[in-house]
Amino acid sequence: MESGPPGGSGPAEPGPRLRGLRGADAAASASSLSRFGAEAGCRAPAVAAVLPAGGSGERMGVPTPKQFCPILERPLISYTLQALERVSWIKDIIVAVTGENMETMKGIIQRYQHKRISLVEAGVTRHRSIFNGLKALAEDQPNCRLSKPEVVIIHDAVRPFVEEDVLLKVVTAAQEHGCSDYDLEFGTECLHLALKYSHIKAKLVEGSPDLWKVTYKRDLYAAESIIKERISQKVCVVMDTKEDEEHVGHCLEEMLKTELNHVKVTSGQDLQQIILEQCYNFVCVNVMTSDFEETQRLLNMLEESNLSILYPVVVISVHFLDYQSVPFGQKMEKVMQIREFAKEVKKRNILLSGLLIYFPQEEQKLRESLRQGVTIIAALIKERNSGLIGQLLVA
Amino acid sequence: MESGPPGGSGPAEPGPRLRGLRGADAAASASSLSRFGAEAGCRAPAVAAVLPAGGSGERMGVPTPKQFCPILERPLISYTLQALERVSWIKDIIVAVTGENMETMKGIIQRYQHKRISLVEAGVTRHRSIFNGLKALAEDQPNCRLSKPEVVIIHDAVRPFVEEDVLLKVVTAAQEHGCSDYDLEFGTECLHLALKYSHIKAKLVEGSPDLWKVTYKRDLYAAESIIKERISQKVCVVMDTKEDEEHVGHCLEEMLKTELNHVKVTSGQDLQQIILEQCYNFVCVNVMTSDFEETQRLLNMLEESNLSILYPVVVISVHFLDYQSVPFGQKMEKVMQIREFAKEVKKRNILLSGLLIYFPQEEQKLRESLRQGVTIIAALIKERNSGLIGQLLVA
Repeated sequence: MESGPPGGSGPAEPGPRLRGLRGADAAASASSLSRFGAEAGCRAPAVAAVLPAGGSGERMGVPTPKQFCPILERPLISYTLQALERVSWIKDIIVAVTGENMETMKGIIQRYQHKRISLVEAGVTRHRSIFNGLKALAEDQPNCRLSKPEVVIIHDAVRPFVEEDVLLKVVTAAQEHGCSDYDLEFGTECLHLALKYSHIKAKLVEGSPDLWKVTYKRDLYAAESIIKERISQKVCVVMDTKEDEEHVGHCLEEMLKTELNHVKVTSGQDLQQIILEQCYNFVCVNVMTSDFEETQRLLNMLEESNLSILYPVVVISVHFLDYQSVPFGQKMEKVMQIREFAKEVKKRNILLSGLLIYFPQEEQKLRESLRQGVTIIAALIKERNSGLIGQLLVA
Repeated sequence: MESGPPGGSGPAEPGPRLRGLRGADAAASASSLSRFGAEAGCRAPAVAAVLPAGGSGERMGVPTPKQFCPILERPLISYTLQALERVSWIKDIIVAVTGENMETMKGIIQRYQHKRISLVEAGVTRHRSIFNGLKALAEDQPNCRLSKPEVVIIHDAVRPFVEEDVLLKVVTAAQEHGCSDYDLEFGTECLHLALKYSHIKAKLVEGSPDLWKVTYKRDLYAAESIIKERISQKVCVVMDTKEDEEHVGHCLEEMLKTELNHVKVTSGQDLQQIILEQCYNFVCVNVMTSDFEETQRLLNMLEESNLSILYPVVVISVHFLDYQSVPFGQKMEKVMQIREFAKEVKKRNILLSGLLIYFPQEEQKLRESLRQGVTIIAALIKERNSGLIGQLLVA
């Protein structure tokens, strides 16, 4: 499951790019690459990226350098690396970090299974760091796995929201215009440096609003909210019955679709595929089985999939309570077993909660229960707070 | 409780400045005002503020103009007004809004009980809006309650985090330097406008990082997180016993103090004073009473106090579960009454949840239960999510 630790400060062990969860992204990138050729009217150039990440994060007002500040418990720089490595036509990603953060950075690459990353030591200034990155790309070292690029993207380690289309435009522009005088006059010392010390075609990218830089503590807050929002766009409903259309679980699914605007609610018929498409929210309905069978099955699949390596996955185990057949307290006590499951799967970054929905005979009241259930599901998915795992919520 | 609606587009009905919850803030402002005199070495000038708020919020990517976007269900501009009206030496606050938003703005002033606010119609540009505000201050209208100021602070309606000390510095600078050529060269058309069309000494404030402007959707996210963090700094523990030092409630209080760094945990001995000092988080321990007596008492006080007008107040009703004396299910069922209470007080912006802490005989296990209780309390206070009210969480 884990890739080997990157050796020394040289390139990280390159892993297969198309495997497991990365599949969907890699496929998207491949199609962009062919678009690339068609749009630019030329062959795709060899592209690399250099990330200066030697900053100390003074403005943040926190002791941790900002590129290592955690968002949903994962360091900011890992999000930036993820954004770049999704783009399959970026062949190498060079990160410049200070000597004291070298081990931290290696740990991040290993834990979050980043690929195509090489580390170089940062310089005393941002420009020196970029220079070191470019030098590593330009040098003909023996045993060096880095391929000499034609275009280098210089990208701040603290701009996690870079999209492939922006990067594509940059590379196209770099190919078409090279480094013009205009670029140089635009105040880009980095460009000057690149031209002077390496024989690489380089272009500095000017940030658009989407490319904003995490500078202050408030930017970390914003980044966390944006990430939470992004991974809350899809909810998969898994059910322990496939046929019964009258099933109360189907009513819940319908209600989720109606009440949660902007969220794509899918049925978990092909779970493997849904996991591959990176859905981070699961509502697991247990009706036919009296226990947690369906939830257990889902948790096992999630644990095998490695889906939760990059983001915490929310799983809500739904149970229905019919006062007439089982006393409330008895049902509660049974479902409270969820606490132990939750503790166990938390270790794998899966946030499990229980939801007990009251099941009255009267249609109107049942709809009210289901609606409250949806409100609770929405809250759990939105907040993704690990402090509330293992709780049994009641609608 | 409610002040009357402000009449027409003229000044809002001025209310007494020192009353109810505003007491603490007003007192702080009064001391600043005397500091003002001492620091500036002159008498305190008459100060007014003009807020251009006629923008359409296009960059936000949402249909609501950004000044009216909700943060914790309250419009952004209300936070800015709150920041300004805390400063007692700002005598009048003029808000320029478009005709179509005039009624919305009046509703906001009424609902959140803002004082010293006057409304004027916004112009087609920001400068026109400022001009209209200044004109209202400069004119000698019959029946006009506005006092002619010597210094006018122009402040963006979408910069909610302005602090009194910054405003104080601005006014001091305005008094000392007036509007110098330097200011004008600094690119401040607004200043030019102010000088040309009014006989008021005006100075445009350049924003510091703290004064950042809510421009994009991500800024709204950041603002919400900052506000949530600010109102989560104080937690008050209310208990139904005052003397018993061995009381498990005291252990919980100690654990809260140890585990929640950066949070001030106070005992609720003088609840009226604590409410007056604007504590927005209450942990209410019910041990001696078998029901919700203590929680009810607290809720009544909160409802009377109007504390929750500006921010949602979190109340966590803590109960202890001794398996040996009461069966789990029975206790649960009893405490589940909390759902009805929660629905009721939600109407008053009070977010009530229950917390059942398992009470084992063994010291080590009890500490573990208490620690989990603290984790849940921290999560509820941090998220302040109304979707989880009325739930009974178990530690």
